[in-house]
Amino acid sequence: MTKQTNDATPVVGIIMGSDSDFEIMKEAALVLDEFNIAYQVSVISAHRTPKELEQYAGSAKERGMKIIIAGAGGAAHLPGVTAALTVIPVIGVPIFSKKLNGQDSLYSIVQMPAGIPVATVGIDNARNAALLAVQILALSDTGIMKDIESFREKLADASKLKNKKIQEKLHADS
Amino acid sequence: MTKQTNDATPVVGIIMGSDSDFEIMKEAALVLDEFNIAYQVSVISAHRTPKELEQYAGSAKERGMKIIIAGAGGAAHLPGVTAALTVIPVIGVPIFSKKLNGQDSLYSIVQMPAGIPVATVGIDNARNAALLAVQILALSDTGIMKDIESFREKLADASKLKNKKIQEKLHADS
Amino acid sequence: MTKQTNDATPVVGIIMGSDSDFEIMKEAALVLDEFNIAYQVSVISAHRTPKELEQYAGSAKERGMKIIIAGAGGAAHLPGVTAALTVIPVIGVPIFSKKLNGQDSLYSIVQMPAGIPVATVGIDNARNAALLAVQILALSDTGIMKDIESFREKLADASKLKNKKIQEKLHADS
Amino acid sequence: MTKQTNDATPVVGIIMGSDSDFEIMKEAALVLDEFNIAYQVSVISAHRTPKELEQYAGSAKERGMKIIIAGAGGAAHLPGVTAALTVIPVIGVPIFSKKLNGQDSLYSIVQMPAGIPVATVGIDNARNAALLAVQILALSDTGIMKDIESFREKLADASKLKNKKIQEKLHADS
Amino acid sequence: MTKQTNDATPVVGIIMGSDSDFEIMKEAALVLDEFNIAYQVSVISAHRTPKELEQYAGSAKERGMKIIIAGAGGAAHLPGVTAALTVIPVIGVPIFSKKLNGQDSLYSIVQMPAGIPVATVGIDNARNAALLAVQILALSDTGIMKDIESFREKLADASKLKNKKIQEKLHADS
Amino acid sequence: MTKQTNDATPVVGIIMGSDSDFEIMKEAALVLDEFNIAYQVSVISAHRTPKELEQYAGSAKERGMKIIIAGAGGAAHLPGVTAALTVIPVIGVPIFSKKLNGQDSLYSIVQMPAGIPVATVGIDNARNAALLAVQILALSDTGIMKDIESFREKLADASKLKNKKIQEKLHADS
Amino acid sequence: MTKQTNDATPVVGIIMGSDSDFEIMKEAALVLDEFNIAYQVSVISAHRTPKELEQYAGSAKERGMKIIIAGAGGAAHLPGVTAALTVIPVIGVPIFSKKLNGQDSLYSIVQMPAGIPVATVGIDNARNAALLAVQILALSDTGIMKDIESFREKLADASKLKNKKIQEKLHADS
Amino acid sequence: MTKQTNDATPVVGIIMGSDSDFEIMKEAALVLDEFNIAYQVSVISAHRTPKELEQYAGSAKERGMKIIIAGAGGAAHLPGVTAALTVIPVIGVPIFSKKLNGQDSLYSIVQMPAGIPVATVGIDNARNAALLAVQILALSDTGIMKDIESFREKLADASKLKNKKIQEKLHADS
Repeated sequence: MTKQTNDATPVVGIIMGSDSDFEIMKEAALVLDEFNIAYQVSVISAHRTPKELEQYAGSAKERGMKIIIAGAGGAAHLPGVTAALTVIPVIGVPIFSKKLNGQDSLYSIVQMPAGIPVATVGIDNARNAALLAVQILALSDTGIMKDIESFREKLADASKLKNKKIQEKLHADS
Repeated sequence: MTKQTNDATPVVGIIMGSDSDFEIMKEAALVLDEFNIAYQVSVISAHRTPKELEQYAGSAKERGMKIIIAGAGGAAHLPGVTAALTVIPVIGVPIFSKKLNGQDSLYSIVQMPAGIPVATVGIDNARNAALLAVQILALSDTGIMKDIESFREKLADASKLKNKKIQEKLHADS
Repeated sequence: MTKQTNDATPVVGIIMGSDSDFEIMKEAALVLDEFNIAYQVSVISAHRTPKELEQYAGSAKERGMKIIIAGAGGAAHLPGVTAALTVIPVIGVPIFSKKLNGQDSLYSIVQMPAGIPVATVGIDNARNAALLAVQILALSDTGIMKDIESFREKLADASKLKNKKIQEKLHADS
Repeated sequence: MTKQTNDATPVVGIIMGSDSDFEIMKEAALVLDEFNIAYQVSVISAHRTPKELEQYAGSAKERGMKIIIAGAGGAAHLPGVTAALTVIPVIGVPIFSKKLNGQDSLYSIVQMPAGIPVATVGIDNARNAALLAVQILALSDTGIMKDIESFREKLADASKLKNKKIQEKLHADS
Repeated sequence: MTKQTNDATPVVGIIMGSDSDFEIMKEAALVLDEFNIAYQVSVISAHRTPKELEQYAGSAKERGMKIIIAGAGGAAHLPGVTAALTVIPVIGVPIFSKKLNGQDSLYSIVQMPAGIPVATVGIDNARNAALLAVQILALSDTGIMKDIESFREKLADASKLKNKKIQEKLHADS
Repeated sequence: MTKQTNDATPVVGIIMGSDSDFEIMKEAALVLDEFNIAYQVSVISAHRTPKELEQYAGSAKERGMKIIIAGAGGAAHLPGVTAALTVIPVIGVPIFSKKLNGQDSLYSIVQMPAGIPVATVGIDNARNAALLAVQILALSDTGIMKDIESFREKLADASKLKNKKIQEKLHADS
Repeated sequence: MTKQTNDATPVVGIIMGSDSDFEIMKEAALVLDEFNIAYQVSVISAHRTPKELEQYAGSAKERGMKIIIAGAGGAAHLPGVTAALTVIPVIGVPIFSKKLNGQDSLYSIVQMPAGIPVATVGIDNARNAALLAVQILALSDTGIMKDIESFREKLADASKLKNKKIQEKLHADS
Repeated sequence: MTKQTNDATPVVGIIMGSDSDFEIMKEAALVLDEFNIAYQVSVISAHRTPKELEQYAGSAKERGMKIIIAGAGGAAHLPGVTAALTVIPVIGVPIFSKKLNGQDSLYSIVQMPAGIPVATVGIDNARNAALLAVQILALSDTGIMKDIESFREKLADASKLKNKKIQEKLHADS
């Protein structure tokens, strides 16, 4: 399970409109756990609790938050509305729904008007949202920078290992 | 040009994120002019002026407004965010953009989560948004009801006249 | 199960082309039950029983009906054809089909020609169709208005509770 | 210009929701002129003049009509609603609109429910609608059958001529 | 199971590129069984057995065939190539595949160039393909015409019965 | 203008369904001119001249042709039908049409059934079709191999030059 | 299982970004086994192991490889990046993902810029990728040419057999 | 015109595959000019100059670059391939092409595999790409933070002014 850091001031906020999105969004939390970055997970809805969202986003910077990761599906307004209420970077995660194959979620998040950007990642790709947050934080933290560089090396190693295994498997078969 | 009624309390609010949407949204105003329904046109952005929107939508019912027509394009959050801030019906007009053929505008408006509906009309169809508003107002105003019924008859007559003309034209040709 | 009100004159008509759509459309009935609004559920097809539809829609206003909610999938003509036969507002619910992901249903309902609007809600979102109907009825009924306002508060409370629970869960995990 | 046959009983009905569709639909008339098949062009709307449509389609067979070609765009209900009102074959022509690239027109026409087919041709392809009508009429008329066979030969000859010309042009260039 | 008529000359040919399409295409056969119309089912591929297709389609009219129903999925060339090889009407059935939701099948069949029409029905709607064939045959056969008219009445009756049942069910529930 | 090589046996066949596609397809010819590869341009239609296509494709290998480049739009059957009639590689060029944005052309060409591949390039990208042909021919011709390698270097050089120019332009501006 | 040829110099390289794509890509290997063509299967990622890809693709021609088959899904860069690093033909296989129905994979592979073609086959159609490779190799190897010709005959025979079986089945049923 | 800062070490790299994308990408440069952030504009292609890209991206961090903004259209690999070669954040701008309405550009950029994120903004929205870069840089630079906060105020003021003007215009009209 994810470990929301209790003591530290959260640097990353992870928000979602409904707890049904948690299955996807917890991947972001797991990545931040890996990098020892303090975060806070919240269920806040642009539509059901607009005042809570205004309070949350409006005070995020003052509370020491540096990045907000917002996941939403369908008419996915949460990332964009959050971005309108703060100047810290907002990363949007389009949540898949079989209805329109995730097109509605993706378009609602990425097609923001000029002035208020949302950094959009792939459909259901909460993992990449967190990695993007880590890369941003690494710009002013050499410790995190080292961690992300070593993460990339592990990624490459895992890929090379898969290549080695498939070679062995095919040779064994032939 | 459209005639925004000055004296009467506006019953319908017409809002759009940018004045560039006015070319489309004025069609709604023209319909309300036709039906002598008092309205107010405003440029309010869910992203650039979120506080103004909160104030506008939050007080709309108290100010005597009965319906809000909201037009938006791209990641079109205005109708949905407005609907979250008021309990009077919100009608959404997806504004066409060549980028994704209006799909982004349509999906961002129509695919609202359960709990907060937006009454969506066709892409760029501000005229139908206003007619829908008129039909809603007619439910509790027999004068407007008569007007909409007579409007429908004129619609049919205009269609029949077109049929007559095309018959005459083709007979003349043959 | 839904409780179609027997004694009262139905104020809302819920129609669908086939009983296979009932699984989705009953969500609308359940919402109206919640708000104690009398309704009538009918299976009427724009294609298989066009005369019944003409009679139903043509007399709806006279029978005291104020709003019709029509659900349809594929070449979803029911909402639009109904709207052409009455001046009371028609709310369209596009029913999902895996064939074209609901795009056919949505486009067939929302892209009505100027003159005859259909208030379209999200794919399979019969719940929102009914809530929209309630919001429209609330415009001339202060009792319903109070109910919808209290509904919105409950919606916000439920969302806040989910937030609280996810916080507790994550703290317990950490 | 097209020559709507005056004296003969029309065998093919060409209908469209609006005279703005005539630019496309006249291609069908021109093909029927070529094959000397009597036809009637009408502007009838499924939404603006539903009663006229019911009368038109309901009596088409009795009036000696064998096929109806119906063109419509957007939420294109005309072909399907016509097909529901008659048992003679209905051929649907989806009219292009830049809004959704003709997808709305195509899906609204082709995705009819089981029981009521519409013979759909390509977007804006009124010419093919008429040729399909000719091929159907040819099944019980050897004269028309000969004409369509000779039409196909001319089609092939025109294509071969284009090939010859491009060869000559390229040889001249080289 | 379908009953391919043995003795009678087949009036309708049902073809498909692969026997895996039979699950869908047999619906067409079942409809023709219902109407006692002689037909022949064949597996012929535009890509794997082009010569067989040429022979089949090229001689269809001479063999007494009046209509060909062709089902195909993906790059669905069978209906169009068949239509190019005969002057009798060809009805195309786009077969669904999850890959592109049936869009590839539909577009490959319906978007034929001017000159060679294919009468396209809805995705997987082989039933409608056969009903369209029946409606075409009925134009020159009063017996079939009576059958299709009575079929439409039964369709309406079945729909009315569903309406009655849902009324009873809801009254029983309330 | 393109220079169709007269004397040499054509190694590449460039075919298209209509001369209206020549504007796009001539780009392929221009590339082959550049590489001094003999080719033949023909207008042949899978639908209008199926017998000519059968003859052309069926004898292509015997005539010394090594690759066929086929361009087509809409229900673009030409590349696939050609591929079914020969074992030499067929390269398909989807021709853009505003109707469905080239989706119909692309899907009709690329989604071939297992057994008969078409090597598909980007929409309207006849240039890449010819370059792919050149790369294939280079596998057994060291002269062409050298030419394609030098072409790639020029491509890189042109790109570097553009970079240099934009640097100069921006420095001049600042 | 597939039999990666050990001793012979691989003529075809089969690469994929992740071992999860092997389920699809092994179909390519099975086809090459059938045709006794030596190949090598590798897991190499354009994103996770860019240096390995540069080395692999950059030296492929020198190592005697003639064709590379690259499978990838989502933002499917592997085929295009490989094609940029070598002049031997690259065949791209778009891997299906339910997220956007394979549209993302297809578009990312087929829409290459002018200069660097990728020969794209259908979504998940690794079988056709291998057959295309075989057809290319056959251009300079008469043994393979005979094999592919005999393969096509078997394909036709299998199709004819299916036709025969469906005839028998239907006759038995009737 | 944009003013590429000459003296300062560029903090933001703006890259594009072709100089034809400069018309769009210069909007990013203009924003950075406004915020006095040093940047460098380059034409580098993932396909035409892969080695230059490797060098550029591989050394970006060492050269003091903090963010790369990459614009690309069609099979838009530039942002993703760049992101694979560096750990500093990469912002992707999908460039519109009428071919597939920008869908190909958007999907090729946003749908990156887990591990290598690209922060994607709206189609052609280079302005938002630069604003996102500014927001990221503001996290560790209070001067920039003040500038972005004042920018947001101006954005709101401009929107309010538009509202005022439309009010005046409509009152003048009425």
